[in-house]
Amino acid sequence: MRQTNLFTKTRKETPKDEVAKNAKLLIQAGYINKEMAGVYSFLPLGFLVLKKIEGIVRTAMNTLGSQELLMASLHPKENWEKTGRWNTLDVLYKVTDSLERETALGPTHEEIVVPLVKPFISSYRDLPFSVYHFQNKFRMEVRAKSGILRGREFLMKDLYSFHPDKEDFEEFYERAKKVYLDIFEKVGLGELTHLTFASGGTFSKFSHEFQTISDTGEDVIYICKKCGVAINKEIIDEQKVCPECGGSDLREEKSVEVGNIFDLKTKFSKPFELEYKDKQGERKDVLMGCYGIGIGRVMGTVVEVLSDEKGIIWPEAIAPFQIHLLSLGQNEKADEIYKKLKEAGKEVLYDDRDIKAGKKFADADLIGIPYRVVVSEKSLKDGGVELKKRKEEETKIIDIDELIK
Amino acid sequence: MRQTNLFTKTRKETPKDEVAKNAKLLIQAGYINKEMAGVYSFLPLGFLVLKKIEGIVRTAMNTLGSQELLMASLHPKENWEKTGRWNTLDVLYKVTDSLERETALGPTHEEIVVPLVKPFISSYRDLPFSVYHFQNKFRMEVRAKSGILRGREFLMKDLYSFHPDKEDFEEFYERAKKVYLDIFEKVGLGELTHLTFASGGTFSKFSHEFQTISDTGEDVIYICKKCGVAINKEIIDEQKVCPECGGSDLREEKSVEVGNIFDLKTKFSKPFELEYKDKQGERKDVLMGCYGIGIGRVMGTVVEVLSDEKGIIWPEAIAPFQIHLLSLGQNEKADEIYKKLKEAGKEVLYDDRDIKAGKKFADADLIGIPYRVVVSEKSLKDGGVELKKRKEEETKIIDIDELIK
Repeated sequence: MRQTNLFTKTRKETPKDEVAKNAKLLIQAGYINKEMAGVYSFLPLGFLVLKKIEGIVRTAMNTLGSQELLMASLHPKENWEKTGRWNTLDVLYKVTDSLERETALGPTHEEIVVPLVKPFISSYRDLPFSVYHFQNKFRMEVRAKSGILRGREFLMKDLYSFHPDKEDFEEFYERAKKVYLDIFEKVGLGELTHLTFASGGTFSKFSHEFQTISDTGEDVIYICKKCGVAINKEIIDEQKVCPECGGSDLREEKSVEVGNIFDLKTKFSKPFELEYKDKQGERKDVLMGCYGIGIGRVMGTVVEVLSDEKGIIWPEAIAPFQIHLLSLGQNEKADEIYKKLKEAGKEVLYDDRDIKAGKKFADADLIGIPYRVVVSEKSLKDGGVELKKRKEEETKIIDIDELIK
Repeated sequence: MRQTNLFTKTRKETPKDEVAKNAKLLIQAGYINKEMAGVYSFLPLGFLVLKKIEGIVRTAMNTLGSQELLMASLHPKENWEKTGRWNTLDVLYKVTDSLERETALGPTHEEIVVPLVKPFISSYRDLPFSVYHFQNKFRMEVRAKSGILRGREFLMKDLYSFHPDKEDFEEFYERAKKVYLDIFEKVGLGELTHLTFASGGTFSKFSHEFQTISDTGEDVIYICKKCGVAINKEIIDEQKVCPECGGSDLREEKSVEVGNIFDLKTKFSKPFELEYKDKQGERKDVLMGCYGIGIGRVMGTVVEVLSDEKGIIWPEAIAPFQIHLLSLGQNEKADEIYKKLKEAGKEVLYDDRDIKAGKKFADADLIGIPYRVVVSEKSLKDGGVELKKRKEEETKIIDIDELIK
């Protein structure tokens, strides 16, 4: 894409009430726009990143054999009354229409997915299966100040699995754990992300979170120095050693919860009477698991942990473009290179603007595309273009044909 | 996909309060689930159709050079107060949080897009451009009884264009008209869809709608027998002849509005002071257009107008799968064919269920995939598989290798 066509520009100023580093950088670089506290729109560059992360997550969910659908955001009040959460979930937005009828604005989808699958489950032959969707969630966060890490509206992938028995559930749950770790590896958070044992609520011993080490995190975790598995502070009093390997040498870190998976047992099956007939014709409760990843939160976490003083540093897999091509007064030659790179199927942002070189370099650092390619009088004299990785200082001159390969 | 893996099944019953044909058929065939009046979830088959339509619309928007983004659903109250619509738009859902702060649930996005683009427009050099997104809209329809034709929550593509002057706006608007007609052609509604002159509101003479002839439509249009352009009943008293060719021989039809495009002039630029400096350094208002298509509504309209007494008939371009492969007690051979079709890149729903042939045929007709391929003892004896188009009665035996080609 030609930067002269991109309607956004980098900005010097960010909203006065914005304190989160992720939001400040993303607003400055033109990735997001703040509508109000905890509510952001995704501008073209931000949208591309969101779609890249969504694509990685979708591929992972499909390897689990899960079926994609799209559940509604407006939820019937009676579903939430049935689970008892209409009055107990404090983040639940309630919407009243002109006839005084109330509905909920979905903060999560257990109350929708269970009645949705119910007509299709009668026998053990209908199990197991799982479904997922990418859908905006709404949560009434009274104070939202963490940028896109914790929004009042945010895009989330949530998957729900349905099983006839514990063994079947556990087999799926273990596979989901591995698939989740793969996702964080792929989006560039692998080294900093730890499988973390956390509270399972009133009905399960543990849930599992995926926590990424970050100074701006709201959580505190204790990482086992032996195996890398962590314990959330909320359960450290009852769980003082690593539940995975028994290790007791732990290191405390602040962290961001980038995903979580949960053994729901029959918590949501029971209120909706989600049952099946087993091989003996006996009625049994369906067992459930749920598995969440905040797509915007992953994006925000990457910005929190992988930026430097000059700006964002995107991992290749989720960068809006792979190459940032900068023309320093050489648009004729750069146009040609841009055309060739596009023909070779490369994702290129081409800075063809008529502005000073210093501003182009600063913008490239702020926007954070993995490879910067400069076409200048000097580079051409030296035999090609200047290539620099965003996260390295070193530059080198390479031949134009070599670049295209 | 193997039908034994698909978690949905066809259903005999539909919700008692459902009167719309589109919703009844889509619920019976397992495409959608009704959450409450005007609110539907899209099940795996329905999600595939939605994504196909979305893909066609996205490609079309990109040919207009438009930039995709994703704007928020929670809107600041002050934006809606600025345009005066906080108190006048009766479909506006208002959400109050626990601190008694009010926000709007976006029924359309003019109030968001204008302040969003404002920081990036200062000079004539920043114009023209356009942006679009696919986003859920929320409208407080007190009585929602048209299935996915008119929802309280629905997926819509809306595009907003920004121009320095009338000529530039008109050039884009004419291109958008053509692109819209192309979209309706591609999704299979071309022959029934008419460019329709409608009320332009208080500030424009006309807007343009795209109306598809359908008995269940809420609109009435008068189609010019000479050129095919139509006039919405709402303006027929002031516009008695075809505004396109002057023809006065008109035919009345009921219709569904599947898209509309609108000359916004400065209606939304003014309240937000969206201005630019022209070449002479003079400050001028930015001119705007908006261009909407309801993705779910297109899907529902296709079902309304292209089904028969047996079920849905999807046009190839938006069908969830291209081929419905039915095994009649020949799963070994059918497995082989399924594998080969998949390897050849075909989209196949494979009915590998252990049920009666009659039920398989009935389900195939209800689900409405364009090509039905039956593998039976008889077809194999006759030299291959039986191929039938959903919209035709004729069947023929073709060789398996020919099918794959």
